[in-house]
Amino acid sequence: MNTSPSSKNNPGNYFEDFRLGQKIRHAAPRTVTVGDVALYNGLFGARFAVQSSDEFARAIGYPRAPLDDLLVFHVVFGKTVPDISLNAVANLGYADCRFLKPVYPGDTLSAESEIIGLKENSNRKTGIVYVRSRGFNQGGAPVIDYARWVMVRKRDETAVVPEERVPQLPKAVEPSALGAACPAIDASAYDAVLAGSPHRFGDYKAGEKIDHVDGMTVHFNLFAQSKDRFGKRLIYGGHVISLARALSFNGLANAFHVAAINGGRHVAPLFAGLTVFAWSEVLATADVRGRSDIGALRLRTVATKDKPCADFPYKEGEDYDPAVILDLDYWVLMPK
Amino acid sequence: MNTSPSSKNNPGNYFEDFRLGQKIRHAAPRTVTVGDVALYNGLFGARFAVQSSDEFARAIGYPRAPLDDLLVFHVVFGKTVPDISLNAVANLGYADCRFLKPVYPGDTLSAESEIIGLKENSNRKTGIVYVRSRGFNQGGAPVIDYARWVMVRKRDETAVVPEERVPQLPKAVEPSALGAACPAIDASAYDAVLAGSPHRFGDYKAGEKIDHVDGMTVHFNLFAQSKDRFGKRLIYGGHVISLARALSFNGLANAFHVAAINGGRHVAPLFAGLTVFAWSEVLATADVRGRSDIGALRLRTVATKDKPCADFPYKEGEDYDPAVILDLDYWVLMPK
Amino acid sequence: MNTSPSSKNNPGNYFEDFRLGQKIRHAAPRTVTVGDVALYNGLFGARFAVQSSDEFARAIGYPRAPLDDLLVFHVVFGKTVPDISLNAVANLGYADCRFLKPVYPGDTLSAESEIIGLKENSNRKTGIVYVRSRGFNQGGAPVIDYARWVMVRKRDETAVVPEERVPQLPKAVEPSALGAACPAIDASAYDAVLAGSPHRFGDYKAGEKIDHVDGMTVHFNLFAQSKDRFGKRLIYGGHVISLARALSFNGLANAFHVAAINGGRHVAPLFAGLTVFAWSEVLATADVRGRSDIGALRLRTVATKDKPCADFPYKEGEDYDPAVILDLDYWVLMPK
Repeated sequence: MNTSPSSKNNPGNYFEDFRLGQKIRHAAPRTVTVGDVALYNGLFGARFAVQSSDEFARAIGYPRAPLDDLLVFHVVFGKTVPDISLNAVANLGYADCRFLKPVYPGDTLSAESEIIGLKENSNRKTGIVYVRSRGFNQGGAPVIDYARWVMVRKRDETAVVPEERVPQLPKAVEPSALGAACPAIDASAYDAVLAGSPHRFGDYKAGEKIDHVDGMTVHFNLFAQSKDRFGKRLIYGGHVISLARALSFNGLANAFHVAAINGGRHVAPLFAGLTVFAWSEVLATADVRGRSDIGALRLRTVATKDKPCADFPYKEGEDYDPAVILDLDYWVLMPK
Repeated sequence: MNTSPSSKNNPGNYFEDFRLGQKIRHAAPRTVTVGDVALYNGLFGARFAVQSSDEFARAIGYPRAPLDDLLVFHVVFGKTVPDISLNAVANLGYADCRFLKPVYPGDTLSAESEIIGLKENSNRKTGIVYVRSRGFNQGGAPVIDYARWVMVRKRDETAVVPEERVPQLPKAVEPSALGAACPAIDASAYDAVLAGSPHRFGDYKAGEKIDHVDGMTVHFNLFAQSKDRFGKRLIYGGHVISLARALSFNGLANAFHVAAINGGRHVAPLFAGLTVFAWSEVLATADVRGRSDIGALRLRTVATKDKPCADFPYKEGEDYDPAVILDLDYWVLMPK
Repeated sequence: MNTSPSSKNNPGNYFEDFRLGQKIRHAAPRTVTVGDVALYNGLFGARFAVQSSDEFARAIGYPRAPLDDLLVFHVVFGKTVPDISLNAVANLGYADCRFLKPVYPGDTLSAESEIIGLKENSNRKTGIVYVRSRGFNQGGAPVIDYARWVMVRKRDETAVVPEERVPQLPKAVEPSALGAACPAIDASAYDAVLAGSPHRFGDYKAGEKIDHVDGMTVHFNLFAQSKDRFGKRLIYGGHVISLARALSFNGLANAFHVAAINGGRHVAPLFAGLTVFAWSEVLATADVRGRSDIGALRLRTVATKDKPCADFPYKEGEDYDPAVILDLDYWVLMPK
């Protein structure tokens, strides 16, 4: 009887396993449901009206309440982990993330990735993998498209990667690329009282800073597998992004849709039991091509741990304030 | 570039911000789903047959399983927090809470409140706000109506509140006001074995005390935002109410509907890691006007922390037993 | 006024309360929903394609994604607890567990049990209760059938149990009894890339051992009532079974259906905060009668706490490795 270990498990890809141009279809597709929505809301306290209420969504032009954009991001991101980042040291960045189509409960999401860059680190123990990932609905239509780069261990320090390249990625998504996942809305039917704020697109100005006031204590981390293989646990930063977005309701209640993520940095890890606070700065305002119903705000949202944000903690010189855990640059849409 | 703080966030209302007769429409409406039901059941272990099983509910006359009454309460209550109790020191009491219409998965709940009383405290640092809140379904029909009063900080100790009044609130809901949220049921189709108890309305007598035996350990607190602004965390007492109601299944399994809450006192806070126990006393029994299918029990349910309830811990003279955390007075309906 | 304690609560059955041949209908039926599925997936990280995706399930012949088999087991098991094991010292074993029909979101599950064996322990303080339990859907069709035995306290040490018997239970379910809950599938439409592994039934050999690599940290325990009556908390072992099954995806991704559980031993308790790892050995492979679409693997899956499984920790002589918490023997189905 053969009792030797099999090689049927997936040890994850190491840096030298990747090739430029490599395409990967990820397992396994997931039908997202109102159950996932309830869990998401319960974990993060999300309360944007469009995603919270079928009635509110229908009143402005959606067929029903769409999924929170970040839930879509997490589901697709999660699918890429076993192939891309199981042996990651750190998730280094995101770029050019665009939401392309609304996702509704009952839709089934799948994910594919392409390796768009590879760069070995000088210590030869790790390398940076640049990957473009796309999520699709059951009809095959893309719902999200984004790039990320991640530092991945090498299995064998002497291994040589045949071809390297560092891709050019945009610093920010162009306003002209925004809005694909937002149907034409009836801004006059958008009930600002029900939504929680009188402030529409035209009320926000570049440079304005908003303290989101509320704090939320993190209990634990769903949407991620705990990894202890290397003695260090890689916390899923997406959890912090969702907390920051949910907290931003207080001051940005009408920012009903995350249209794009320009970039994000997980400045420091977060552990259970800490309380997360957040503040935002309006980096820019923009019209959306062909759309008189909505406008776009480019935001920097900063999340902190155990530190309220009334004085907008950010950087001290080159370094981040030690309380900062997230520095996120993204576009949201607001009714005009 | 303007980098001054904006005033777009909601700092919450302070005592002097409220006015008698003021009406508030709360954000944001919420479509409640089977996902919320699963989360509620997972957190509290609710297992009353009518709310657990579409088949059971249909057999007795509901179109399908309605939401747990307290889930309806929590959703509506949660909507009122940002406008009413963000700057609260303590939630002091509830009165005259009536459930008016069954709520089903897929319904969308919204909430409105009216300020019905204001009374500054003699220290001039806080005042008591009395508010009547109502929840509505997507058709605009009221599903719940209740009063509560809450101690709220003043922003400015010197501020003067123009008009004060302490409203008269009933000690208990009259039996004649019960039953609006309960359709006519076929009591003969009510399968007591499936429901978990042979004891129907006629088997309970005023004065009877029931130890609910089981304990449930509290892991964490959903349905509430953590507030740390004043260095003290306001625990959402509704979590304890739901735990006590779920525990009461053991002894009151056929009390299938909470028809009204007469009053409730959160005697002491609850922290994660403790185990909650509960017991109930039948305060009164009553017929429900025009209904031969159901009868009403007025109950006092007492919840304790880390103390089983075989000897019914309650008051020691004027003071509560130190283990008591909840003293709830409410009406339930049972099949005849 | 009568203020004496009532006997309306359920103190649970003690050993001397059971009788051979006794039949019990359990309360309360439960409509299982996509909400329960989301909670299950969130807790355990389950990602087998058939249960994750309506599209994937439909492509191979299911009407939609069925519930995870172990979720069905937990729901039915949970119903039996108040009548069978409320006064249990320990859950000793399972046998002859067969899944008989797929369960879909929206189905309503109920449970019945029969006492098939009773054996007092020599200390006369406890006895072993053998019970056969069955779960049914809303149409009355059995969906699961299993035996378990559990050590239950006596209320009164002097009580005499009129008739004792130790039932004969099979060491393993026969392959001919497998497959009832699996519709005929179109194995050619089974997309192994989407499912997460190229390895089908024919690729596995008896004696093969698979390290499932990943670890998952346990946060807390749903699907169970905490019991503190006897000063010791009985941890629900089913939680560990689900974790082990979810972890086994890495190496057994195409083992899309648990067809039967031959036996299981909860070797040691698990507490929150520990990380669970798992490995499996293929004990046997078998054809399924009348089925060319699928084959069966008999697996031993071993779960450990805080110990990765690259060297397959199991027994040291007669004793289990101290890290082992679960030793599970079961049949899974794979596409041919």
